[in-house]
Amino acid sequence: MATLVLLRHGESDWNAKGLFTGWVDVSLSAKGEEEARRGGKLLVEAGVTPDIVHTSLLSRAIQTAQLALAEADLAWLPVKRSWRLNERHYGALQGKNKAQTREEFGDEQFMLWRRSYDVPPPPIADDDEFSQAGDRRYALLPPELMPRTECLKDVVERMLPYWYDEIVPDLSAGRTVLVAAHGNSLRALVKHLDGVSDEAIAGLNIPTGIPLRYELDADFRPLVRGGEYLDPEAAKAAIEAVANQGR
Amino acid sequence: MATLVLLRHGESDWNAKGLFTGWVDVSLSAKGEEEARRGGKLLVEAGVTPDIVHTSLLSRAIQTAQLALAEADLAWLPVKRSWRLNERHYGALQGKNKAQTREEFGDEQFMLWRRSYDVPPPPIADDDEFSQAGDRRYALLPPELMPRTECLKDVVERMLPYWYDEIVPDLSAGRTVLVAAHGNSLRALVKHLDGVSDEAIAGLNIPTGIPLRYELDADFRPLVRGGEYLDPEAAKAAIEAVANQGR
Repeated sequence: MATLVLLRHGESDWNAKGLFTGWVDVSLSAKGEEEARRGGKLLVEAGVTPDIVHTSLLSRAIQTAQLALAEADLAWLPVKRSWRLNERHYGALQGKNKAQTREEFGDEQFMLWRRSYDVPPPPIADDDEFSQAGDRRYALLPPELMPRTECLKDVVERMLPYWYDEIVPDLSAGRTVLVAAHGNSLRALVKHLDGVSDEAIAGLNIPTGIPLRYELDADFRPLVRGGEYLDPEAAKAAIEAVANQGR
Repeated sequence: MATLVLLRHGESDWNAKGLFTGWVDVSLSAKGEEEARRGGKLLVEAGVTPDIVHTSLLSRAIQTAQLALAEADLAWLPVKRSWRLNERHYGALQGKNKAQTREEFGDEQFMLWRRSYDVPPPPIADDDEFSQAGDRRYALLPPELMPRTECLKDVVERMLPYWYDEIVPDLSAGRTVLVAAHGNSLRALVKHLDGVSDEAIAGLNIPTGIPLRYELDADFRPLVRGGEYLDPEAAKAAIEAVANQGR
């Protein structure tokens, strides 16, 4: 049996401003930093002790891992990072205000970009100020791998090789693995783990800052579908709050 | 030609209190955090851009790397950690007040423990509150490798395998390597790089928070002995201040 813990980063400076972020490298807000520390406290209280941490290449996930692990006296853990755990690339919407985008393109198009499984936003231009075309951290990515926009299906496809090649071997070695990442890269992973359909994944939200623990069987499938949030009450409240936003 | 950058962590909570620290895992003080950020600024100003960072397993070096790299927009760098980059283990002196120790044991014994090349302090007992005997981060170290005290010679011997096996291959791949570590593990590395004698190393101090850059030749030996501090004036002042303390 192996233990996997997923941790979605909390509020960033752009979440607070209502902007599409995607691959733009914004920092956690003070609230997001507090969420990360609380995530670390929840690990300690639940007696969950990771042996290794995997993060995306984006500062808000990296900071979340650092703050949570420091809180748990685990700053020294080995760490691996990959672009494959990055947030979904939001294409030409990156840097745009969500409310304005909704107004400009209408509710239907807006929700299609946000929640459909296979409709990506328009690609971002390389000379857009919010493009990652010249970003040094992706210098080793060949052009055919470097996204200019992504739908969730694209995220599943680029995330899964990392799951199989980097995370599963750690689990297989008996390590408790923490993955600190993003709403959509974690939804992609949960979709795989729980076998969520392309339709049902639209309705699945992962709360920020609350570690989600999966105990996995010998085939690296969950013993309990959906796993277990380390603060189930807070997770339930957060999920209901998101559901009510749509009403 | 390869570039190596050494960064010694700044003031910790115990430096500020005048206690021997060694392998005890204390955090940076607010001043130490500021030193780390300044180290990051110096990297940016000098146009030195690391591709990978190596740290010890101690929080004060890890925090230094994190704060300096965040300042340089490089939080995403790959990172490797090892106990082989840890500070010298201070044995039974860990947790003791420096001034009191000097008074108790006399100037000669005190300076021998602090500055001799091959005289370690008495070993720490496993049940001492400042022992690392049960520390999870060293769980994979077999008993014969786990130090209970160290002299600088011991540090050189346990650090060099990491230099050869982990740092040199990164340099060899053309990467600019940042090593965030401690006064004595960095003195051990500088002793090797510059071929400093067992006697002369006693007089060598590395200032905190100022990146020290070495350009290395094909044999991974310095082109310029002693390297180059990215803030030479500040480094000179810090070294002179330490020298004057001894008078």
